[in-house]
Amino acid sequence: MAALKLPRLSDDIRALVDEGAPGVWRYRPALDLPGDVPPLSLGEGRTPVVELDAWGGGHGLRQCRAKLEFMAPTGSFKDRGAAPVIASLTAQGVAKIVEDSSGNAGAAMAAYAARAGLAADIYVPAAAPSAKLAQIAQYGATVIPVEGTREDVADAAAAAAKAPGAAYASHSRHPAFVEGAKTYVLELLEDGVDALPQHLVFPVGNGGLILGAHKALTELRQAGLEFSMPRLHIAQAAACQPLVRAFNTGAAAPVAVERRPTIAGGIDVAVPARGAEVLRAARDTGGSAVAVGEEEIAATRSALARDEGLFVEATSAAAFAAAAKLSAQGAIAAEDSVLIAATGSGLKDPPQPAD
Amino acid sequence: MAALKLPRLSDDIRALVDEGAPGVWRYRPALDLPGDVPPLSLGEGRTPVVELDAWGGGHGLRQCRAKLEFMAPTGSFKDRGAAPVIASLTAQGVAKIVEDSSGNAGAAMAAYAARAGLAADIYVPAAAPSAKLAQIAQYGATVIPVEGTREDVADAAAAAAKAPGAAYASHSRHPAFVEGAKTYVLELLEDGVDALPQHLVFPVGNGGLILGAHKALTELRQAGLEFSMPRLHIAQAAACQPLVRAFNTGAAAPVAVERRPTIAGGIDVAVPARGAEVLRAARDTGGSAVAVGEEEIAATRSALARDEGLFVEATSAAAFAAAAKLSAQGAIAAEDSVLIAATGSGLKDPPQPAD
Repeated sequence: MAALKLPRLSDDIRALVDEGAPGVWRYRPALDLPGDVPPLSLGEGRTPVVELDAWGGGHGLRQCRAKLEFMAPTGSFKDRGAAPVIASLTAQGVAKIVEDSSGNAGAAMAAYAARAGLAADIYVPAAAPSAKLAQIAQYGATVIPVEGTREDVADAAAAAAKAPGAAYASHSRHPAFVEGAKTYVLELLEDGVDALPQHLVFPVGNGGLILGAHKALTELRQAGLEFSMPRLHIAQAAACQPLVRAFNTGAAAPVAVERRPTIAGGIDVAVPARGAEVLRAARDTGGSAVAVGEEEIAATRSALARDEGLFVEATSAAAFAAAAKLSAQGAIAAEDSVLIAATGSGLKDPPQPAD
Repeated sequence: MAALKLPRLSDDIRALVDEGAPGVWRYRPALDLPGDVPPLSLGEGRTPVVELDAWGGGHGLRQCRAKLEFMAPTGSFKDRGAAPVIASLTAQGVAKIVEDSSGNAGAAMAAYAARAGLAADIYVPAAAPSAKLAQIAQYGATVIPVEGTREDVADAAAAAAKAPGAAYASHSRHPAFVEGAKTYVLELLEDGVDALPQHLVFPVGNGGLILGAHKALTELRQAGLEFSMPRLHIAQAAACQPLVRAFNTGAAAPVAVERRPTIAGGIDVAVPARGAEVLRAARDTGGSAVAVGEEEIAATRSALARDEGLFVEATSAAAFAAAAKLSAQGAIAAEDSVLIAATGSGLKDPPQPAD
């Protein structure tokens, strides 16, 4: 791909908007994709931002909002990246895609592959939630459970992708994924540079969304748009925190960690493929990296549903728990504006009903 | 409530749009709600419309589209109605809401009640899918399973709503629900009157969405907006078809039916509270009423996921199966434009993964 040449921007983000285009293709002028890629879409993106007065206020945050990324065609933010990845592979004439996923990226890639008419083999951890596996299978993809670690799943997928006619539609490696993820920030900017919050908090496994946000912000600055750079914060489960450990010890790359079981399956990634870039995104913007425990994640998930009517998956709840912790530590001040990515639907891994 | 006074409209629907308001409140000038109702929102509405070239083409429909109502805060179109219902009850000083639901309306009412700080008792059929019950419980609502028919559930809720301080937030009876459902059509009209399809197909249980669509279209006509009236079509499961039987025998009200088990739980309603109005909506617009079998529903659900990447609940698939049947019967011509409401997420009642 050629280097992206953004138009010179004053304060007018609208130069990057194609009003009539569907889904993430609305921002195609700002995405670094070859010209012959067809605008494959299921209507992803343009997710609402809601205020969290009750929950945020309870944690000392007076300007706390969530962007509801679970309001997506397959129920997670992964659709933002899957659309351009599958579109790119379609333009290249690929017949079958191979992907590894804890569930959300697999569902997203399977859905867009179905829409594009491509076959899909999705390698998943054997322990992934049944709702996620059922969803992937519905899209007509072949679901291949792999015993072992998340990395064993990725290795199996990468090996399978070497077959003739197949391609690795990796959400953690394909560059078009991060291009699609840039739209998270581009949407915020449609309301003007003043609408940008001071803090952006993300649950981070492989870091596709935070990398997209950082790339968009960096490119917009380079193009001449003037704004205060938001601080980008990494939330991980204490049970699997290679980036938090690295951040807090000054390491440039993810550190090896012993992993314990976590309900936050979407961020149970011990070796993030682009971890060094994720660390730079947080450091360069004055952000931080925070680990949260299993009980905090579960309690936060329940509190968001009870206090705000937001039913998110456990992985997403980790980001909210991290924001609460940053508030308690004083790293986010009471009057600061904070936006948290509600990345996946609670229907993806529903807890058992109370008896 | 006072009778709604719409502004005199030429071709400019924008007179009804409040650009800065969240969710369905964007169309508040067109909704008949008291002025003191606060704009309670979780970002519902503004769902995307996607083309179904593969699936529609396979059924002889060259201009077939779906509006993805499952891209909603709680995963179904019910959020459009729940927002104004709970907002209205909040303005009235209600402390607790009672609702009966097969699952989707219960989740919607529970979520908005949580956001408004109201207690919620949700009466559900004992056989409702576990994902739906888990979701309702997460919002902090009390889930009360009731053995028997859907009507037994409604009777239990109506009785409980007579307690002091409680109110019946019925999605089938509260007038604000239909006001919210009007936004389905108002959104379509934002793209201009020419964007209205010739046929609108809905899965119909109590008929909240089709009633909202019909009310909006009727009111807009009365206000002077000129457009070709779309035909409104009722889809029901053959296992429970009080409206289809009535439509096809010329009856003015739903007829009593023997009910068989159906996977389409959202439309398993033998005695629709406003059935006579639903029948008029279809008849007055030159629409129809179609029943589809269990196998058609299941096969259509799978086909939508495999062909288009759309994972809908079984209830929604009934509407697509009905559209295919109308095409096969010649009631919808190949070149006609058709829009089908994809009302609920497949994650609400996921089938078991294939082994």
